[in-house]
Amino acid sequence: MHGVILGTNPQVQVVDLCHQVLPQNVSQAAFLLRSAYPYFPTGTIFVAVVDPGVGSGRRILCLATPRYRFLAPDNGLLSLVEAPGQWIQVANRRYFLDVVSHTFQGRDIFAPVAAHLSLGLDPAELGPIVNDPQRLPANVPQRIRGELRAQVVHVDHFGNLITNASAADLAALGSNYTISIGQVELPGLHQTYTSVPPGELVALIGSSGQLEVAVSSGSASQRLGAGVGTAVLIRLRGRC
Amino acid sequence: MHGVILGTNPQVQVVDLCHQVLPQNVSQAAFLLRSAYPYFPTGTIFVAVVDPGVGSGRRILCLATPRYRFLAPDNGLLSLVEAPGQWIQVANRRYFLDVVSHTFQGRDIFAPVAAHLSLGLDPAELGPIVNDPQRLPANVPQRIRGELRAQVVHVDHFGNLITNASAADLAALGSNYTISIGQVELPGLHQTYTSVPPGELVALIGSSGQLEVAVSSGSASQRLGAGVGTAVLIRLRGRC
Amino acid sequence: MHGVILGTNPQVQVVDLCHQVLPQNVSQAAFLLRSAYPYFPTGTIFVAVVDPGVGSGRRILCLATPRYRFLAPDNGLLSLVEAPGQWIQVANRRYFLDVVSHTFQGRDIFAPVAAHLSLGLDPAELGPIVNDPQRLPANVPQRIRGELRAQVVHVDHFGNLITNASAADLAALGSNYTISIGQVELPGLHQTYTSVPPGELVALIGSSGQLEVAVSSGSASQRLGAGVGTAVLIRLRGRC
Repeated sequence: MHGVILGTNPQVQVVDLCHQVLPQNVSQAAFLLRSAYPYFPTGTIFVAVVDPGVGSGRRILCLATPRYRFLAPDNGLLSLVEAPGQWIQVANRRYFLDVVSHTFQGRDIFAPVAAHLSLGLDPAELGPIVNDPQRLPANVPQRIRGELRAQVVHVDHFGNLITNASAADLAALGSNYTISIGQVELPGLHQTYTSVPPGELVALIGSSGQLEVAVSSGSASQRLGAGVGTAVLIRLRGRC
Repeated sequence: MHGVILGTNPQVQVVDLCHQVLPQNVSQAAFLLRSAYPYFPTGTIFVAVVDPGVGSGRRILCLATPRYRFLAPDNGLLSLVEAPGQWIQVANRRYFLDVVSHTFQGRDIFAPVAAHLSLGLDPAELGPIVNDPQRLPANVPQRIRGELRAQVVHVDHFGNLITNASAADLAALGSNYTISIGQVELPGLHQTYTSVPPGELVALIGSSGQLEVAVSSGSASQRLGAGVGTAVLIRLRGRC
Repeated sequence: MHGVILGTNPQVQVVDLCHQVLPQNVSQAAFLLRSAYPYFPTGTIFVAVVDPGVGSGRRILCLATPRYRFLAPDNGLLSLVEAPGQWIQVANRRYFLDVVSHTFQGRDIFAPVAAHLSLGLDPAELGPIVNDPQRLPANVPQRIRGELRAQVVHVDHFGNLITNASAADLAALGSNYTISIGQVELPGLHQTYTSVPPGELVALIGSSGQLEVAVSSGSASQRLGAGVGTAVLIRLRGRC
């Protein structure tokens, strides 16, 4: 993909945003993209190829917002992009490689289209407007009788467990709650990883604005045997 | 290596092509290079340092083709570059770092030579012409009584098993064959990973033009316990 | 971090130096930085965010040397930078992102400050001079009755074990010594990995100028079950 992009636009800066998405995990990819994209400069083109349906009839979409361009399969990967924008189907073969494989369209379609966009191509040239892009079901905690049932949506390099519960979700509960994962119950939120001694569990609001369970100077994922999908319960005290 | 290159040519674009080669696996490196290099623009310099013999008497070679320059140890790593070209020994210490280690010549020789080439250095300045570069034995399937004995040459990030059997090798068998790996027999080729339900095995021609065994939305490597070197048999039906 | 940097300086070259530091291992990070930084061109800004105390009261420091700028937490990570320089506390919020998280200051402080430095910002603008940066205890072998007690400080991609014993440490012992790790004793130094047959252990001075224990065409880490912290003993012969 780097080679194809640089072949069309030798001046463009290419950043490898992330290679840590679990295979085919569109929901995790959507979360990671949402965490990172607002920090990139205006004009950035995001190429997001988590694409279990590659080579099938699934569409490829371009989302054009006032600041950015996004390219992704029509599988919900862009569900968490918050800016309003125009959706266009990537259909104009003029901007594809001459030979398009069934298994690596990141190289054969996404990369050359992204390179053309970086040279100023109007997204409207890519194909027809789309009004029904796929959306992921909202990945938010379930509120059941005062209990918030969240889950882990990403495990980072350090083994920190990032959940789908936002700071606002927790604030709505007040401040008198506990946070449980497996058999472990944490008494509430701290501000930093080192608010507790090394080796102890800590819950905090992480850098993406979400509830995170960590081990100070350690790996919560290893300690708890937890991963993407593990349940995290936030319970109001004095209820059962 | 990045630091050394940018010290000589601050304007050059450096792409990390791949860090997934198994240690010392020259044959896998040759395959991966062949899969990627034709997609890079004219003028690209490929620096391929899979170099089990680093520091020994093995030569370092530059292959100059009409479109590209390649730098590699003389161990067969460039065997699958298809364009004809001139081979030159990298011997002129003028383009090396002042101090050359016995264990990291990627940094001390390959990187500075590549940077000078990117500034337009004529490869002929690097050293004498070489007429006997090492070649890997052709890594092709064996045909034995109507059966094609292929093997896995690369396992990608998804656990897909890429073999040394090309689309042409299979076409030469007609279309009435089965594909076996371990105890599993697949009835023939599909076009995409999702031609079968999630979790099922599928064989197809992958993006490098080779026979590939995959699990739809899963890892064939994990499922089958297969890796580089695992045998894959293509058998004509109605024979035993 | 890439996004933030490019937002302030779209022309800068960003190199990912290393993502292999063990979580929170400041000592290993210091070693890796020391191995790499002298190979980068004058003017390079090193952003070293191994930061177990992120969000706590720990300071962030800039070290300005004649050739380079370094940014790191005040945790000893820059202890092995050999050039003399001026230490400045990174305190001026004018160069931070507007919102600073407690858990990812690489993105919110280090990246924007680095981008401003790359545009020519005088480090003196960042904050007050610091006279008492934290230093790691010198990570050097202990000499006990003619025996040098070293330890592994890094395991590279190949499983080679790099120790804290330098070429000079060994030279000071003369040449009549053995090198022991676990139950294995090696008779002395070789020059290259292939000085011994494939699969055999070999000791040599590696590319960072340190004693290294390797397996020719194999992984010493796997063979010996060794990792960062494993003891390596250098014993003069004829003593016990």
